[in-house]
Amino acid sequence: MSMDRLMERIAATKNPSVVGLDPKLDYIPEHIRQDAFQTFGYTLEGAAAAFLRFNQEIIDAVCDIVPAVKPQAAYYEALGWQGVKTLSETIAYAKQKKMFVITDGKRNDIGSTMEAYADAHLGVTRVGDELIPAFNSDALTVNGYLGTDGIKPLLDLCNRYDKGIFVLAKTSNPSSGELQDKLIDGEPVYLHMGRMCEAWGEEAYGKYGYSGVGAVVGATYPEQLTELRKKLPHTFFLVPGYGAQGGGAQGVAGGFDEKGMGAIVNSSRAVLCAWKKTGGDGRDFAQAARKEALRMRDDITSCIPEITLG
Amino acid sequence: MSMDRLMERIAATKNPSVVGLDPKLDYIPEHIRQDAFQTFGYTLEGAAAAFLRFNQEIIDAVCDIVPAVKPQAAYYEALGWQGVKTLSETIAYAKQKKMFVITDGKRNDIGSTMEAYADAHLGVTRVGDELIPAFNSDALTVNGYLGTDGIKPLLDLCNRYDKGIFVLAKTSNPSSGELQDKLIDGEPVYLHMGRMCEAWGEEAYGKYGYSGVGAVVGATYPEQLTELRKKLPHTFFLVPGYGAQGGGAQGVAGGFDEKGMGAIVNSSRAVLCAWKKTGGDGRDFAQAARKEALRMRDDITSCIPEITLG
Repeated sequence: MSMDRLMERIAATKNPSVVGLDPKLDYIPEHIRQDAFQTFGYTLEGAAAAFLRFNQEIIDAVCDIVPAVKPQAAYYEALGWQGVKTLSETIAYAKQKKMFVITDGKRNDIGSTMEAYADAHLGVTRVGDELIPAFNSDALTVNGYLGTDGIKPLLDLCNRYDKGIFVLAKTSNPSSGELQDKLIDGEPVYLHMGRMCEAWGEEAYGKYGYSGVGAVVGATYPEQLTELRKKLPHTFFLVPGYGAQGGGAQGVAGGFDEKGMGAIVNSSRAVLCAWKKTGGDGRDFAQAARKEALRMRDDITSCIPEITLG
Repeated sequence: MSMDRLMERIAATKNPSVVGLDPKLDYIPEHIRQDAFQTFGYTLEGAAAAFLRFNQEIIDAVCDIVPAVKPQAAYYEALGWQGVKTLSETIAYAKQKKMFVITDGKRNDIGSTMEAYADAHLGVTRVGDELIPAFNSDALTVNGYLGTDGIKPLLDLCNRYDKGIFVLAKTSNPSSGELQDKLIDGEPVYLHMGRMCEAWGEEAYGKYGYSGVGAVVGATYPEQLTELRKKLPHTFFLVPGYGAQGGGAQGVAGGFDEKGMGAIVNSSRAVLCAWKKTGGDGRDFAQAARKEALRMRDDITSCIPEITLG
C-alpha cells in the first residue's frame, strides 16, 4: 500500500495534475450527443454512451502527458446502472492507457459494509471460487467521519493489492469550515482528521516516503494546505478546487514538498469544457482538452520545485 | 420535504422498524444461488440475479408488516454495474409493494456534484427533453462532513419531490467517537451535526412535526440517542445497530417521542439470515424473515408509547 505507482507516473510525465472525468451532457459536444441519441434514443443508455465516447477521446488526448484521471461517481450514478457501467468501462479504458485511476466516490461505512465498498472499488469480489474485480480502480476517495472502523477494511485491502485512498480533510467548498474548522482541543477538525490519516498510514510507507493513505485538501484554502503539508509528512494530497473553483497555481504550491511531490492537483471542468472557448463546434474538444492540460501543467510546475523521485 | 410518508407507513403497520437489504452470497440459500449460477455462471451477473430474487422474496414476505426497506449500496456495488442494476430493480420492486425505500449510500459531495447524487437517488436526470428517474428512492443517507454545500442541493430536490435524507450524526460503530465524541465549544461533534440537521430542516416541517432532514444515530449508544431525541425535536432518527451489533429494544426506546414516533430501527442480518436458525435447508428463508421481523416489531413496540400520528 503506497502512493508509489502514482508518484512514478507523476515523475514520468513531470506533471502533478489529474483530469477529473466529471461528464455532464452540457459538456459534451453536439456531434457525440447526436450519435449516441440516434442509436439509443433520449435514454439513460444514450447519455451513458455519450459519456463513454467523450471520456475515451479525452483519455486518448491526455494519457501521454497527464498521470491520472479521477472519475466522479456521482455523474455516472445520475444515469443509473447504465451510467455506472460507463464508469466501469471508463476506468478500464484509462488503465489500459497506463493512467492511474482515482475513483472519486467519497465512500464511507463500517465493518463488513466498508469491506464491500473496498472490494467493489479497489479489490475483488468472490463469486463461488472466482475472484472478480468489479470496478478495479487504483485509489478511492473516502470520508473518515466514522473513524477507524470505516478505514481499516480499506487498509487491509490496499496492502494486498497495492492501492491507495484519499480521506477528506479540508474540502474546497465555502461551507467546509462549518465542521472542519471547528476546534477540538485547540486544533481544527481538518487537522485532527489529517493526524488520523498519518496514523492510519503508519504501518506501510512506500519507497518515496508517502503512505497509501492520502488526504483531500482544497486549493481554495492555501494556508491550510501549507500547514497540512508541514504537519503530515507521509500523507499525499489530492487537491481539488484549482481553476473553476477559484484556486490558482500559487495557491497550490504550499501543498508540495521540496521534491515537487506530495500533491496532485485536480481540474475537471476547465479541461473537459476547454472546447467551448475555441470558437469551434466542439469537434476539437479532445485537442482543446490537451492544450488546457498542458497549460495547467506548466502553470503548476512553474510554482513548485523540480519534480524528482525519492 | 418531510418524513410524513414514512410516518404514515409506520402508523399503518404499527411498526417502527426497517429491514436492511444488505445481501451477501453467504446469506442466500443454496437453491437460489444454484438457480442463478446455472443460468449465468459464477459471474457478477449470476450473483446479482441471486441478490434480486432473494430481495424480492424477502420483500413479498414482509411488505404488509414492515413499513420500509433500506438497501445498502455497498453490497450491490461489490457486484459492479450488474449489482447496481439489481439495486435499481430492488428499489422499484419495493416501491411497487408500497414500501418506503431508504437507499443507504452515505453519499457526500458539493455543489453540482451533490446535485448529481440528488438527481440520481431521489430525483430525475434530464436527457434532452426527457426527465428520467435513475434510482428513484424515497430517502437517502448522507454524510455531512462537508457542511451546508453538501446538503443544500438535496434540500431543494427533497422539497420538489417530497423526499427525505438521513445525515450521519452518531454512528453505531465502536470507533465512532474518534471524531464524533470530540468536543467543539463544549459540545460533541455528533450534537453539532445534529443541530445542523435541525437548521437544515427548518424551512419545511411536515404535518407531524418532523422535517425531511433526519439523522442516523446508533442503537449502540442509548444515552446519546436519548439526549439527541430531546435536543432535536424535528429530526427523525434512523437507528442502526439493533440486534447483530448489540443494541437491544430497551436501548432504542430513548430515540422515540411520546407518540411512539421519531425513530425507525434497522435490522439487516438478523432478518435476512433468520433461516439459518430454523434447522432447515433455506427454502423457508422468507417465512423465517417474516417471523423475525414480527419478533423485532413486538420487541420494540413493547418498550415505546403506542404509535399514533400527530
